[in-house]
Amino acid sequence: MSRPPVLDFYFDFASGYSYFAAQRIEKLAALHGCSVRWHPVMLTALSASTGVPPSPMVPVKWQYVLRDMQRTAQAEGMPLSLSRAFPQVLLAPGRAMLWLRAEYGSAVALAFARTCFQAYYGDGVDIADVAVLQGIAAGLGVDPECLAEGLADPAIKEAFRQGNALALQRGVFGVPFVLADGEPFWGYDRLPQLEQWLASAPARKAAA
Amino acid sequence: MSRPPVLDFYFDFASGYSYFAAQRIEKLAALHGCSVRWHPVMLTALSASTGVPPSPMVPVKWQYVLRDMQRTAQAEGMPLSLSRAFPQVLLAPGRAMLWLRAEYGSAVALAFARTCFQAYYGDGVDIADVAVLQGIAAGLGVDPECLAEGLADPAIKEAFRQGNALALQRGVFGVPFVLADGEPFWGYDRLPQLEQWLASAPARKAAA
Repeated sequence: MSRPPVLDFYFDFASGYSYFAAQRIEKLAALHGCSVRWHPVMLTALSASTGVPPSPMVPVKWQYVLRDMQRTAQAEGMPLSLSRAFPQVLLAPGRAMLWLRAEYGSAVALAFARTCFQAYYGDGVDIADVAVLQGIAAGLGVDPECLAEGLADPAIKEAFRQGNALALQRGVFGVPFVLADGEPFWGYDRLPQLEQWLASAPARKAAA
Repeated sequence: MSRPPVLDFYFDFASGYSYFAAQRIEKLAALHGCSVRWHPVMLTALSASTGVPPSPMVPVKWQYVLRDMQRTAQAEGMPLSLSRAFPQVLLAPGRAMLWLRAEYGSAVALAFARTCFQAYYGDGVDIADVAVLQGIAAGLGVDPECLAEGLADPAIKEAFRQGNALALQRGVFGVPFVLADGEPFWGYDRLPQLEQWLASAPARKAAA
């Protein structure tokens, strides 16, 4: 039997549906024996490339999205208490995650990402604030001063930018987005289809 | 006990997800004792107003949407055999539906709409062709010549235009879209949430 696919999970800390997906992706992957590669990207950069304005720029759509987010949180039993700063462009958490992965490994980077999502969407904390990110990192045994230096490192900024460009090349035009063996799933609402797709993997392989 | 809500169902014959929703909305409504008001609208007009380009105008997104439509059709067990003319702006079927409703009543208009969706998405027939629409209408006992005259009637064109404007006023920025007592549900993938919302209606009323 062939190996289960790796799930490439593209997300933006600025995206509420990325928060929902981040809560669910690891559980879903574990159920199907997959591992997950977390890719922080910048939705505004993807949007600039496709010409589709981010939802907060479209008042009638944004009003709906806010309502849908609350309804989704309620239906899924997830806490949702938005930061007053929401919505906003977020660069620092994604860069911090890349720096943490390079310096402390994937497990610390992942724990950091999860705590950031929880803080921003569950506890209303503004994660654009570098001091907040330093506090989260310190809780994971990371030197806060080093994190601040890492965030200012041009190499980290460039890595984040390149991650975006690569995502676009792979057809990632929005978030959350999952690529499973090249099969694309866009949106939190497509995770059930991803699950169906993973569940039908043996049949797919046999037919190939 | 208060009456179940009327479902205002906004759709565009040009939208694949409207086809999926049209197949499901009446069954869903019947389950919950609701009636459905069908509102043909023009997605390109809504898009022009919001500044969000229709998906076919965004190549990387459109490639995904085509794949997602096939996957959705397969998952839901619905036929999908696209017309070669797809995607395209469609005015005539929506106008024809309004004219049929005015002249022959809601049941004939609804049967017409269903047959149009089936023809365009299930059988690959181009429903921009007025002769095709005349054939569908003739099958429902409608005089084809009268339909052609109705389509050219400035009052019908104006009614279609006004329907779009009214939809936008109600916050309808995309299709398919359902308003249930003012509660908005956008997208075929939100019909399960609409069902949950309808199922919880007694609890909602009691709490009000």
